[in-house]
Amino acid sequence: MTLADMAADDLAGLVTSLRDEYEQLKGKGLKLDLTRGKPSAEQLDLANALLTLPSQTTADGVDVRNYGGLAGLPEIRSIFAELLGVGLDQIVAGNNSSLTMMHDTLVYHLLRGGLDSPRPWAQEDKVRFLAPVPGYDRHFALLESFGIEMITVPMNDDGPDAEECARLVATDPSIKGMWVVPTYANPTGAVCSQEVAAALAAMPTAAPDFRIFWDNAYAVHHLDGVEAKTADIVSLAQASGHPNRPIMFASTSKITFAGAGVAFLAGSRDTVAWYLENLGNGSIGPDKVNQLAHAQFFGDAAGVRAHMAKHRDIMAPKFAAVGAALEARLGSYDVARWNTPHGGYFVNLDVVPGTASRVVELAKEAGIALTPAGSSFPYGKDPKDENIRLAPSLPPLDEVRTAMEGVALCVLLAAAEAKNTA
Amino acid sequence: MTLADMAADDLAGLVTSLRDEYEQLKGKGLKLDLTRGKPSAEQLDLANALLTLPSQTTADGVDVRNYGGLAGLPEIRSIFAELLGVGLDQIVAGNNSSLTMMHDTLVYHLLRGGLDSPRPWAQEDKVRFLAPVPGYDRHFALLESFGIEMITVPMNDDGPDAEECARLVATDPSIKGMWVVPTYANPTGAVCSQEVAAALAAMPTAAPDFRIFWDNAYAVHHLDGVEAKTADIVSLAQASGHPNRPIMFASTSKITFAGAGVAFLAGSRDTVAWYLENLGNGSIGPDKVNQLAHAQFFGDAAGVRAHMAKHRDIMAPKFAAVGAALEARLGSYDVARWNTPHGGYFVNLDVVPGTASRVVELAKEAGIALTPAGSSFPYGKDPKDENIRLAPSLPPLDEVRTAMEGVALCVLLAAAEAKNTA
Repeated sequence: MTLADMAADDLAGLVTSLRDEYEQLKGKGLKLDLTRGKPSAEQLDLANALLTLPSQTTADGVDVRNYGGLAGLPEIRSIFAELLGVGLDQIVAGNNSSLTMMHDTLVYHLLRGGLDSPRPWAQEDKVRFLAPVPGYDRHFALLESFGIEMITVPMNDDGPDAEECARLVATDPSIKGMWVVPTYANPTGAVCSQEVAAALAAMPTAAPDFRIFWDNAYAVHHLDGVEAKTADIVSLAQASGHPNRPIMFASTSKITFAGAGVAFLAGSRDTVAWYLENLGNGSIGPDKVNQLAHAQFFGDAAGVRAHMAKHRDIMAPKFAAVGAALEARLGSYDVARWNTPHGGYFVNLDVVPGTASRVVELAKEAGIALTPAGSSFPYGKDPKDENIRLAPSLPPLDEVRTAMEGVALCVLLAAAEAKNTA
Repeated sequence: MTLADMAADDLAGLVTSLRDEYEQLKGKGLKLDLTRGKPSAEQLDLANALLTLPSQTTADGVDVRNYGGLAGLPEIRSIFAELLGVGLDQIVAGNNSSLTMMHDTLVYHLLRGGLDSPRPWAQEDKVRFLAPVPGYDRHFALLESFGIEMITVPMNDDGPDAEECARLVATDPSIKGMWVVPTYANPTGAVCSQEVAAALAAMPTAAPDFRIFWDNAYAVHHLDGVEAKTADIVSLAQASGHPNRPIMFASTSKITFAGAGVAFLAGSRDTVAWYLENLGNGSIGPDKVNQLAHAQFFGDAAGVRAHMAKHRDIMAPKFAAVGAALEARLGSYDVARWNTPHGGYFVNLDVVPGTASRVVELAKEAGIALTPAGSSFPYGKDPKDENIRLAPSLPPLDEVRTAMEGVALCVLLAAAEAKNTA
């Protein structure tokens, strides 16, 4: 029976019984964390060979310990050029964070202007970005930190709502860019379709320097056999006459070491040249020691794919446990929707509108840390207060089960409370 | 006999004989490089133990492979806090480049404003910096890339000309900062005295947010037993009522691996908090794997000093060879002045005014690459065309000797040519 169909007495009884159960849960003194998409120690262990570098010289005789090599080692760039579907001269390998490359790309646009920019963005009266929601909180925080205004657009099952995007950018020259996480989006797991990507690449924009920040963080992070292929945004944009529109980002943060991997930026040849020209003012080159270690560790693109299969073996049971716990507890009540992603790091959970904050609060009091409600929206504000991002990668499998049983109880309790007082 | 005292016939004869010798030099087909302060392979080898990290967890149980730890590992920060004379809560450990930390610090001032800033620097009509000359070309290029105007001030034997600095900053609120390389300055080797540091820390400035970018790149890079101690700018500024004025930078680039070391930023507690707040928008934390490797490699501050003694054993003979070659060839002619630094990476060579470009050109044609004349000045323009920066660290000792014999010949030839046609 759904919660909506329940008689008042039955509902009151359910609330009482759930509250008892919740008190027992609190009594367990749990300390569990589903807040961030951190890899587990077991996943990190898969790459421990990186901690020993067998040689300090590349086949070309480059001593990776010294200065230089602004674009990064060709050895690691070629592997990810293949995986990301670009040419070797269309990709830069950096240090340990693609977020930093996104930050720097924004900074260069703000202070010096991008290719096709009439002036630096900092000299514009106003700069706006489209923000597909729900989306990645760090993307939004980065824009907010620079005073860039965000306009939300819906994130559909096949990517951002392309019609709405096209409508907005057509007439407003202050809209300078948008975020897209094309493959296994954070947090919905949606995959941007070829059609949506083509529409975003081709749409006329009032701003001549409109940019798509294409954060391909989960390009090879499959959870099952579906193995989505990311749309080739760089070629699509080239074909549409907007070669410099997309700037792609990726990293090995969720392939090798989250804090000590290699990040990548890719795009048109002109985009790469522009980025390197800007980067050169403040860089002595990336950490090539780490880049060579990665190249030697992977061997080739097939090596990366084989490595990711090991991650999948660890991750897939955790995602299955999330779905199973939610289904077992909530299945009949019609109080929540959640997705079953084919890849990535997150499960998107929509609860009864108006109760997401309460669920997070209940879980916290029971020792289960969840990402704050609203964190997948700009400024942390979910207008419906219904969205919760679940990140099951870090805890061991049995803790994921325990945590999710608790979360499911909190979802149901919050829903029953809300209905009971309505 | 000095060149100035030489009779016309003798001078013409000298030019002829030097030209013969120069043609022979060209015939040797040399390919030598004294352009950049890169460590030699022999120096890099000293730190090869970094290529194997024995453990991935700190004593406090932090898994260095994962995300987090924005300020850097306490283990490596404590070692450099001691060496740089600041508290553990006054220092941040970053990735592989202090230049990047300088870049980012400028960016934060430009886009968000610093502590004490009335508004972001990008919103000022004009932003200027004092540039002690000769100085470090990358400092100047960084400012130029952001359109920050440079006003040159003389670099004396005890640091920047403090009186001139004080005079300029007292009335011009557009002067927002200055560069200082306090210990073994690039390229003059000068050490900023306690008195000069105190004057710079205390001087009244029209700009409320005036900053000293204190690039302490060579704090522990001694070449002999003099071992200069860097003035404690952070305490001096605190005592003078300008606690946030200095921002210190340092790195292990010339201690361990030039391209894969650890960089540091230090200053007041408020400065560190301000930096981290800005950094957090675009960083998932530094590469802690590399930081732990460094901490384990050094052990403690004494370990760093012991390590630098090994560098000195490699570097000191090269610097001696530079001085010896110049003295042997040029000693009697009075056509050049050069310093004998007690530390750092450079020898500053002043040749006959108007001939520095010619010397670099002659050397280049003979297969000896020198930093372009003027590169130690803003915009690459040495008004007297007399300054040449020599960087003898990278080539093996015998190549330094060969290169410097060639350079000395070029200096003398250019001087004699100039005198002969005068």
